[in-house]
Amino acid sequence: MTGPATPAPFTADDYRARMDRAAHAAADAGLAGVLVAPGPDLVHLTGYRPTAVTERLTVLVLAAGRDPVLVVPTLEAPDAAKAPGAGALTLRDWTDGTDPYAATAPLLDAGGRFAVSDNAWAMHLLGLQRELPGTSYAALTAVLPMLRAVKDAPELARIEAAGAAADEAYGEIVKVRFAGREENEVAADLAALLVRFGHSQVDFTVVGSGPNGANPHHEAGSRVIEHGDMVVLDFGGLKHGYGSDTTRTVHVGEPTEEERRVHDVVREAQQAGFEAVRPGAACQDVDRAARAVIDAAGYGEYFIHRTGHGIGVTTHEPPYMIEGEEQPLVPGMCFSIEPGIYLPGRFGVRIEDIVTVTGDGGRRFNNTAREMAIVE
Amino acid sequence: MTGPATPAPFTADDYRARMDRAAHAAADAGLAGVLVAPGPDLVHLTGYRPTAVTERLTVLVLAAGRDPVLVVPTLEAPDAAKAPGAGALTLRDWTDGTDPYAATAPLLDAGGRFAVSDNAWAMHLLGLQRELPGTSYAALTAVLPMLRAVKDAPELARIEAAGAAADEAYGEIVKVRFAGREENEVAADLAALLVRFGHSQVDFTVVGSGPNGANPHHEAGSRVIEHGDMVVLDFGGLKHGYGSDTTRTVHVGEPTEEERRVHDVVREAQQAGFEAVRPGAACQDVDRAARAVIDAAGYGEYFIHRTGHGIGVTTHEPPYMIEGEEQPLVPGMCFSIEPGIYLPGRFGVRIEDIVTVTGDGGRRFNNTAREMAIVE
Repeated sequence: MTGPATPAPFTADDYRARMDRAAHAAADAGLAGVLVAPGPDLVHLTGYRPTAVTERLTVLVLAAGRDPVLVVPTLEAPDAAKAPGAGALTLRDWTDGTDPYAATAPLLDAGGRFAVSDNAWAMHLLGLQRELPGTSYAALTAVLPMLRAVKDAPELARIEAAGAAADEAYGEIVKVRFAGREENEVAADLAALLVRFGHSQVDFTVVGSGPNGANPHHEAGSRVIEHGDMVVLDFGGLKHGYGSDTTRTVHVGEPTEEERRVHDVVREAQQAGFEAVRPGAACQDVDRAARAVIDAAGYGEYFIHRTGHGIGVTTHEPPYMIEGEEQPLVPGMCFSIEPGIYLPGRFGVRIEDIVTVTGDGGRRFNNTAREMAIVE
Repeated sequence: MTGPATPAPFTADDYRARMDRAAHAAADAGLAGVLVAPGPDLVHLTGYRPTAVTERLTVLVLAAGRDPVLVVPTLEAPDAAKAPGAGALTLRDWTDGTDPYAATAPLLDAGGRFAVSDNAWAMHLLGLQRELPGTSYAALTAVLPMLRAVKDAPELARIEAAGAAADEAYGEIVKVRFAGREENEVAADLAALLVRFGHSQVDFTVVGSGPNGANPHHEAGSRVIEHGDMVVLDFGGLKHGYGSDTTRTVHVGEPTEEERRVHDVVREAQQAGFEAVRPGAACQDVDRAARAVIDAAGYGEYFIHRTGHGIGVTTHEPPYMIEGEEQPLVPGMCFSIEPGIYLPGRFGVRIEDIVTVTGDGGRRFNNTAREMAIVE
């Protein structure tokens, strides 16, 4: 019921290979190296997740031809030494009261250009810019957008398993009572189902009923769901360290003609986005394909967000399926396709699957019915 | 039992006054303004806490003589408009596919120097540096260290209440069984007690038994606590939006002579740090006073962290009680005093109270016995 057995943990060799690929990708892009901050980049490359991210500098320095070095506060060195990737890197610790940027500087080419994790703290970037005025920096996602985007086989297996678990959760949630219950109650049901089907972390459980569904960032509130409501259900989290994220829009009782039409348009748009997936197509092509369907149906102004985002060690990451993103699709990339129509004050519809790029097209990791489910 | 009733919520006027003070403090420091990122700075200044912090730019722009402007993604504008401080600022939204830095630039003096939240994402700082090459930036804590440090009366009342709740939790935890149970079980007890006494969020529940106590960043694990163990208990979280953080080190059964001596040294060091608190003393004076006691006792090399950190809307923030921090203490500042001695492979001792600076000294917000409690 809860999918395959726990996958084997990643080894130091897995992390060594990823760090090596990252260093070489940086060199190929004309960079002196990569500065990796705590967060998903560091988890992906070393398996290390500091207990808390604070103002104390932790940074992984990667450069082609050099061994990876993880700069850590002395206090956190024992934890860092236990990280699954610790065997593939050298720890260099610095002590409270000393200058962590001075400790990091000898690891960097003083005239080099570095990619830095998007979410690195500005204070750390400013500290390095001050310590090494000859260096320059670029956001990691901007210069190495594929660093985490292309998944290897063990990663794909985990994302597939997470998707299957989310699908199991959806299969159960359509059986619960909606009418007369608060959105928060259905959201709690969804969270419990994700955990029941193997998620270790629930990231979001959107229940957007009636007019709340027209705000794509609504989570769940105290509104009591009524007969006749359209309800957007968008939920996901992490299972075995990899993300799930799926959306279906259900209806409490029979929908109106207009509700059915809007739902059909979104479903066709989602299908069109999926059919645009193939190696060599651009990210923006997926967005354009989905958007064209909604535009043609006259609802273009009500599709107010991009069509999708990447997924991996987080439930929301590059690459983005958005106009202007010319990055070509590559086999192993995984991302959401989630067009929507939002009619302010009335209702919203969104349909979302996680899709991976295969050798000749796309493959969905969410496979529940995309037709509108009728709930009670 | 759970302290005073819920305090009245902060109003738009409260936030307006804080934003105004911040803008003037920046002007006084020769800055063109302050750029505030999601996180504690933004919570303090506006009450706004985005559902998720993502790569989409959200930034509050404060400059003396101008109205505050909160730049937000269009998708998140409805949520931002509901923030308690929203009535004291103008929202300016930007849409996926447009350049958020270009949208922010007109709000900034193109030749100005700005303070930026420590935890702002590096990618956003790089985006602004690129968009406005004539601007320069400094980390908020480095240039405006007092921005959140000095609390007003309603804030002090909340921190005092949080401290009292943590003390109530300690009063209960010393009654539970330690010997034969996993650290994780005692940690779960502590978390439940913090919630029982009014915490809405538990940030940490350190249970460091025996040799684990010698790692000051150990949280809690599967080690079974034994008779004869020293156990470091360090716990805290948020109550009514403000932090608690206290540490006591207990012993399972009767301690040895050495254990008692080490505990006495730490207790005297903590007391010395507390007695160094008075308006006009420097932060580093608190560290020096505590450290001198431990040095004199011959354990200096085993006190491997700074003496304290600020507390407010987070449980860990500036100012820091550390050598080199010359910032003078000001009435209304709140911070921890938490010296420790860590004997690798054997045991650790730490004692911590939250202290506020008064007109003529310091006042503790944690008031449980600092003598070593004997537990079972």
